[in-house]
Amino acid sequence: MGNITIRELAQRLGLSIATVSKALKDSYEISDATKKKIVSLANELNYSPNPYASSLRKQQSKTIAVVLPEVADSFFSLAINGIQEVALAKGYHVLFYLSHESFELEKKAINHCNNGRVDGVLISVSSETRDTAHISSLRSKNIPVVFFDRELEGYAAPKVVTNDYECGELAAKHLLDKGCRFPVFLSTSDALAICQNRFSGFANEINKIRNEIATYPFIINCSNDKNIYDQIASILEKFPAIDGIVASVEKLAIQTLLVCADQNIPIPDRIKVLAFSTLETAPLLNPSLTTISQPAFDIGKHSAETLITMIEKKKHSITNDYKAVLPSALNIRKSTQ
Amino acid sequence: MGNITIRELAQRLGLSIATVSKALKDSYEISDATKKKIVSLANELNYSPNPYASSLRKQQSKTIAVVLPEVADSFFSLAINGIQEVALAKGYHVLFYLSHESFELEKKAINHCNNGRVDGVLISVSSETRDTAHISSLRSKNIPVVFFDRELEGYAAPKVVTNDYECGELAAKHLLDKGCRFPVFLSTSDALAICQNRFSGFANEINKIRNEIATYPFIINCSNDKNIYDQIASILEKFPAIDGIVASVEKLAIQTLLVCADQNIPIPDRIKVLAFSTLETAPLLNPSLTTISQPAFDIGKHSAETLITMIEKKKHSITNDYKAVLPSALNIRKSTQ
Repeated sequence: MGNITIRELAQRLGLSIATVSKALKDSYEISDATKKKIVSLANELNYSPNPYASSLRKQQSKTIAVVLPEVADSFFSLAINGIQEVALAKGYHVLFYLSHESFELEKKAINHCNNGRVDGVLISVSSETRDTAHISSLRSKNIPVVFFDRELEGYAAPKVVTNDYECGELAAKHLLDKGCRFPVFLSTSDALAICQNRFSGFANEINKIRNEIATYPFIINCSNDKNIYDQIASILEKFPAIDGIVASVEKLAIQTLLVCADQNIPIPDRIKVLAFSTLETAPLLNPSLTTISQPAFDIGKHSAETLITMIEKKKHSITNDYKAVLPSALNIRKSTQ
Repeated sequence: MGNITIRELAQRLGLSIATVSKALKDSYEISDATKKKIVSLANELNYSPNPYASSLRKQQSKTIAVVLPEVADSFFSLAINGIQEVALAKGYHVLFYLSHESFELEKKAINHCNNGRVDGVLISVSSETRDTAHISSLRSKNIPVVFFDRELEGYAAPKVVTNDYECGELAAKHLLDKGCRFPVFLSTSDALAICQNRFSGFANEINKIRNEIATYPFIINCSNDKNIYDQIASILEKFPAIDGIVASVEKLAIQTLLVCADQNIPIPDRIKVLAFSTLETAPLLNPSLTTISQPAFDIGKHSAETLITMIEKKKHSITNDYKAVLPSALNIRKSTQ
């Protein structure tokens, strides 16, 4: 038989076209029993929606945008793979915009999404981002936004993140257990919620056990991408008591290892190093690197699923206070033995 | 004074608007002397073009697309940074599409670029790509395309690449110098020009010095992304004579190192490993990894400059036989000592 239309389905079932249409989109307005009846007949008659017409009707581009700070970090490259897996399965194109940690570039990217060319946006904010007007403007045009990993604390929007505070505690506990007296936390931005939360957990644990914290800086901000190596070298020279480092992001870990290698600072004997990282080569490094690894692929996957659910009008299930927290894991290796 | 227009500039100089406009775009149609006169007055009167009007006139989106196989490879993340640096300086947005080594996804991405949303496309083809119709169709709509790194051999279009053949020779020479008798080349695709060329150089060098090549496979294709680790493990088990490995791409190198670590195969004592890679952690690995490192950032930069030159109608300078070859470098480290 020829292609059956939604009108014919409705006629056969004695239902309105709107009801059938909503049921086929899994709308919450239609009861499960009615949905079942409709879907069953649709399957039986090989009903397949006309995607072009459907796209026109909804004015959808079947495209989502991903705005993220960089791709050199393994977290982002894994998250991208998770996002693309879901997008592919659901028939969406994915456009990537890189902010390179610049608020101006992030704003430009968001404005570029603001003209109907995308149906929704996944964002991991730049380390400079404090303002939210660009994101609010997008949402005011009914373009849904989901934050992944790097969210904006206090801004009400769906978020998919990891348990940064607990992992900060875990990092500090691990270094203290291994005998560190003066562990330091290397931050990449004092504005990023992920860094703040990781540091708060770290600080909470350090504060519990000693009163010497005034004598050395236990957080150091390496926010200038251009000379991270020099910043770390000068920190280690200035504060020779430092015997442990928690690198809050991968690039800080790699630069720390390069400084220690160049200056013959033995790891773990003089300094123990732990990194928030999903670096594939972590077990192959000399010494192998202890990491707290985020579920990057799953964060990408889950955030894309959340966004596409919102795009496809099942918005009632995703409210602004939606927050999925996917736990990270501590992988103990030689750099902290 | 108020904003001076191009019309006023033309009137003051007694030239046509078209001539002034072309001169300000550095067109080859205008003589250097005339350009100088026009630019000098434009600077004196603080002429600044209206970018919006200019964009409308040219029907330009001021957006370029980058289609590439993946971002987990450090070559691509560095190349992306080079591309974005140029785009930013020239006022272009950059959209990234990932093919994930799938020809179907690459075609979809290219088709997505085919509707006026981008002014030009940079592409590094997937390992499955043999056909060129999708790219020809784009170019037939006057959307310029520049290949970077992974080109399509025999297809006439501007290309920015590295000296893969010579580097294949260099890799083989280095392993033979270090005493390898049975070095093997791990390829990621028998269709990719970069792999073919690297292998041809490698094979040429190996063939020079011995007649034993029939006794073991000196190229092995690990084209299935899902089980590279297993493929490498089974190769090493099946051909215990292998005493050297050239990994044609980064992911093959990492999996080789993981297999050797798990199976306690000592590097470099039993097997020497050399990788085509720009991995930042190469000097930090255990053992540190000998690499042939491509000028990834510069390849990105140069390809973006080439594309934008074509977009901005100075096309006469970029012909289809344009090929920039940026040399790679051998970095000798412990994995081949």
